Amino acid sequence: MAVAMPQNQKSYWTSISTNIEDHLKTVVQVQSPLSVYEPMYYLVFSSPRTMAPALSIAACELVGGQPEKAMTAASVLHLMYAASTARHRFLDRSMGINHHHQAFPANIELLTVDNILSSVYELLARPSINHHPDDKPEQILKVIIEISRAMGAEGIVKGLYLQKQRTGSVSDGKVESGVYSCGAVCGAILGGATREEIERLRSFGRYAGMIHGLMSSMATDEEKGLNEMVDRLRSLALKELEYFDHHPMVETISSILHLDSLLQFTSKQTQSLS
Amino acid sequence: MAVAMPQNQKSYWTSISTNIEDHLKTVVQVQSPLSVYEPMYYLVFSSPRTMAPALSIAACELVGGQPEKAMTAASVLHLMYAASTARHRFLDRSMGINHHHQAFPANIELLTVDNILSSVYELLARPSINHHPDDKPEQILKVIIEISRAMGAEGIVKGLYLQKQRTGSVSDGKVESGVYSCGAVCGAILGGATREEIERLRSFGRYAGMIHGLMSSMATDEEKGLNEMVDRLRSLALKELEYFDHHPMVETISSILHLDSLLQFTSKQTQSLS
Repeated sequence: MAVAMPQNQKSYWTSISTNIEDHLKTVVQVQSPLSVYEPMYYLVFSSPRTMAPALSIAACELVGGQPEKAMTAASVLHLMYAASTARHRFLDRSMGINHHHQAFPANIELLTVDNILSSVYELLARPSINHHPDDKPEQILKVIIEISRAMGAEGIVKGLYLQKQRTGSVSDGKVESGVYSCGAVCGAILGGATREEIERLRSFGRYAGMIHGLMSSMATDEEKGLNEMVDRLRSLALKELEYFDHHPMVETISSILHLDSLLQFTSKQTQSLS
Repeated sequence: MAVAMPQNQKSYWTSISTNIEDHLKTVVQVQSPLSVYEPMYYLVFSSPRTMAPALSIAACELVGGQPEKAMTAASVLHLMYAASTARHRFLDRSMGINHHHQAFPANIELLTVDNILSSVYELLARPSINHHPDDKPEQILKVIIEISRAMGAEGIVKGLYLQKQRTGSVSDGKVESGVYSCGAVCGAILGGATREEIERLRSFGRYAGMIHGLMSSMATDEEKGLNEMVDRLRSLALKELEYFDHHPMVETISSILHLDSLLQFTSKQTQSLS
């Protein structure tokens, strides 16, 4: 059920993704001591990508905010996702489920993830206390709450935890829906959204994350049961966007629900450590 | 070189410590799902204690703030210390250095620490967006930056990291000086301190943490070299307090530098899981 995406929408996601990548490179740099920052750099830029960071920028624009307002949060969303997939690998390895790739000793990776889990809050809080002209500390505090919930007891940690206990392994689906949902909400908050807009975008993000989670686990796009589920999720997601009426960004943000936006995006990943 | 502490100073630290313990019990509760919250509760309340949380309340009072203003930060400081000592145990175990005590499987402990590392930011940010009358979001953001630095690349993680690489094991000294210093600074910020006051208390906290770190590793209080070092650190710490002139809290806060304040405090620890 791949639906072709118009060129202008494709280039919207591509250009946002490039901007986020550029911003991440200013935020995560190899510096002294190398033993701390080199593994961090590697972990961040070799990690799989999601569209959650780009979604946060799009959500910010949908509610009328400038895209730059959500740039730090977008970077943080990638850091969160990188940290959680690394933790996932660590747990799998400790249970004997092997992933091929291990660039650093397990303990170094463990501490690197801890480091990322702490650093994101400094990244979020710092610009706002440096007397930035559009300084809205309350918005930043709300974003911090969303991020910490998505990472902590109500989010990724709980997801990994419960799945681990039930099945002995972890699927990424729950992790993705949490990260996308958090991304949409953070972008909305920073764009000055109303409470209703925030909740609409929270649901939209959750559906979009579930769709991308399903799509990335599909071998072909012809698996029937999954296709039906994707279609259902997509119409639920679109229903949330009706609230935003005919805002020009609606069409663009809804294009994230289509398969080829994902494929185009993930094909960029191989260049990520250049 | 134990110096007897007047009764009123003893009871100051005891009563603050009791208040923090009570507050922690409202913050960390056993709730559903038990598989997530039970290990968290256990880890938090079976952890060794430091006086860093109490120091943050004292620092807040020294600069003229109400003690309650620093209560959440004080609880967070204990959570941070509990998380970092648990991580330290985890790393030691993974290197074959055994600690007797292991109440939960290693992976559960790993995720519980992750959970704590995220939850502390929600705890800090939440009260302030609920329209609290003394709402100072900028102060909370500054505290979040201090906490994330103390936990992340500039603090505990870096300390564990570098020591691990050099010696293969970790001593608590660096961890303690970081937590005490962070405690003093957070209390000062929340009490409305000036920049100069914050920096004085940062140094004071660092010395106090080093002293407590040394003291807890001393077999008797007659080890000569260590005693001399403690005396030197103590006079450096007192020098920082001169800046506060003859404020009535100076005498109280300086009593944290004496051995029996530590002993009295740590003797409370055995009751902690009651």
